Amino acid sequence: MPIADRLTLNIMFENKERTSLTELGEFGLIKHLTEHFKIAHESSVKGVGDDSAVLNFDHKQVLISTDLLLEGIHFDLAYVPLMHLGYKAVQVNLSDIYAMNGMATQITVSLGVSSKFPLEAIEEIYKGIALACNKFNIDLVGGDTSASRQGLVISVTSIGYAEKDDVVYRNGAQEGDLLCVSGDLGGAYVGLQILEREKQIFLENPQLQPDLEGKDYIIERQLKPEGRKDMVDLLAQLKIKPTAMIDVSDGLASEILHICNQSEKGCTIYEDKLPIDPMTYETARELGLDPTVCALNGGEDYELLFTIKQSDYQKLKNDIDVSIIGHITDKNEGVKMISKSNVVHELKAQGWNAFKK
Amino acid sequence: MPIADRLTLNIMFENKERTSLTELGEFGLIKHLTEHFKIAHESSVKGVGDDSAVLNFDHKQVLISTDLLLEGIHFDLAYVPLMHLGYKAVQVNLSDIYAMNGMATQITVSLGVSSKFPLEAIEEIYKGIALACNKFNIDLVGGDTSASRQGLVISVTSIGYAEKDDVVYRNGAQEGDLLCVSGDLGGAYVGLQILEREKQIFLENPQLQPDLEGKDYIIERQLKPEGRKDMVDLLAQLKIKPTAMIDVSDGLASEILHICNQSEKGCTIYEDKLPIDPMTYETARELGLDPTVCALNGGEDYELLFTIKQSDYQKLKNDIDVSIIGHITDKNEGVKMISKSNVVHELKAQGWNAFKK
Repeated sequence: MPIADRLTLNIMFENKERTSLTELGEFGLIKHLTEHFKIAHESSVKGVGDDSAVLNFDHKQVLISTDLLLEGIHFDLAYVPLMHLGYKAVQVNLSDIYAMNGMATQITVSLGVSSKFPLEAIEEIYKGIALACNKFNIDLVGGDTSASRQGLVISVTSIGYAEKDDVVYRNGAQEGDLLCVSGDLGGAYVGLQILEREKQIFLENPQLQPDLEGKDYIIERQLKPEGRKDMVDLLAQLKIKPTAMIDVSDGLASEILHICNQSEKGCTIYEDKLPIDPMTYETARELGLDPTVCALNGGEDYELLFTIKQSDYQKLKNDIDVSIIGHITDKNEGVKMISKSNVVHELKAQGWNAFKK
Repeated sequence: MPIADRLTLNIMFENKERTSLTELGEFGLIKHLTEHFKIAHESSVKGVGDDSAVLNFDHKQVLISTDLLLEGIHFDLAYVPLMHLGYKAVQVNLSDIYAMNGMATQITVSLGVSSKFPLEAIEEIYKGIALACNKFNIDLVGGDTSASRQGLVISVTSIGYAEKDDVVYRNGAQEGDLLCVSGDLGGAYVGLQILEREKQIFLENPQLQPDLEGKDYIIERQLKPEGRKDMVDLLAQLKIKPTAMIDVSDGLASEILHICNQSEKGCTIYEDKLPIDPMTYETARELGLDPTVCALNGGEDYELLFTIKQSDYQKLKNDIDVSIIGHITDKNEGVKMISKSNVVHELKAQGWNAFKK
């Protein structure tokens, strides 16, 4: 485009047809924008469309994943302590590497902060980053710090590796495979609702102390999630290679649909098999929420959802930290949940969509 | 920290001593924040402190670099066409891989945009990203798109590789080495001044057409910089391995100081050897700016600054796109410039500091 047009370019969209991002949603937008990019390098084993990119440099596969966290969208500084924010920013990113059945080894972190932000505040963020790095044996190997004119911006890139034959994609689920999920679901979402409630009370009356009595577990699920490296280690120890795997960031239903769509399969899950912690369950009820909906659509649990061959069932059945919630079916069967009262529901992704905020 | 403290944590800095980010500057801050991180993995050959991280997965070295670009800090949408912005975001990041003497092969791109941004605007950005990818044979292998409440945010991570023995760091310069720079300097900065001037005129009188007559070259230097992949190719072809290398993003003076500090050497450069394009020179004069200061401190040229052994001089001396601007000295000699009138100036980094904005 001619340089002289530059001053008018950003006005020109007013005369064009607009397509709303709200309609398109996050996945639609990424697909729309990237589907015409060609993969040219042999080393690009897997590009856009999975939890992390897989690159083949010699016989080891390099795993790269990146996340952008924006104030007011992904976090609210009114109730997220900065140290927890740093910790969580790393964990949610490592989680993508573990979801490939890989080992995370390095991260880079870029920060954009108001120039009025005191150094001590940034140090708090980095304390959290350091805690996460120490706990999971991660090297911080790069990054960038810049002024930001409005809010806090955090961009994390994780790098990891796996042997070529160990990498697990989203698209390998086969009919008859068992659908498994680690830990429990819905806690991070219910914890967020409690924090939002206390924030409102605090804003109305700053003298009131927040009432978090007995809610530690779900508050921690929201503020201090942990990537499931231990689950990757366990699977290796049990000599189980999942046929497909993804981490639960947007909500169980959304992730199940990713596996089913990419594997071109259907799936049936059972409501009574969903792992929901009693505190999550009771608090959801207190707040007038359906615990099952919280587990299906809450998101931010950072558990691993994976499918295994039936022949691996014996190896895993006694692990109390893994729930078998359903099985993979033919594509024509659809993606559905059998409720406790034996009603069949079609599963829909109502996971988090940043553009709807 | 106890969870219940969370609501007060972000207020608590008001009662603490504050250290101003303005004083510390970008490099100081990164150093301050990262110096206590330990490198544990054998694969982390080089972490924070160079243009890109170097990771050793088997015998190939993987190069990773990341940049965060924020509206109102790194770019002004009043005069940066979105397509150029996408192109530039990629180029400035690839430039870090080339500065390691590596080949860039993949990028990931994360975007944060206002949910009111029309799709067509994001498409323009991606058109620019695609142009840059096609031109430099880069695969887009990942990323993230999110709503943003703080204007446009772009985070790019570049991945590349080099044979272990080919990687060039900032710290290898030796006494007697020749200091070389590709292309010409100061153009991007002077181009920016023209754009800023025309923006002001436009704001005062939107009917006036911008006057960019004859300024194409320097406007392009600002809006559409190119990573110097060709220079990496040329050096390989001439069988020259620089002893140190860095890209000119913050300004020549700042980059020379990086090489000298990390190599523990001094340096002498000559004002009359600085490559300045006639259009840069004349426009700087028109604007009342010293062209030499623009070349030293302007930044955003994305040229490669490197040192070579004297024995490599014969191979390079006839290349018109490389200027030999000085030589490396003992550390005690300091880092200095001999002016056209033979006055000795100490070089200081007055490069771009985002926190000073």
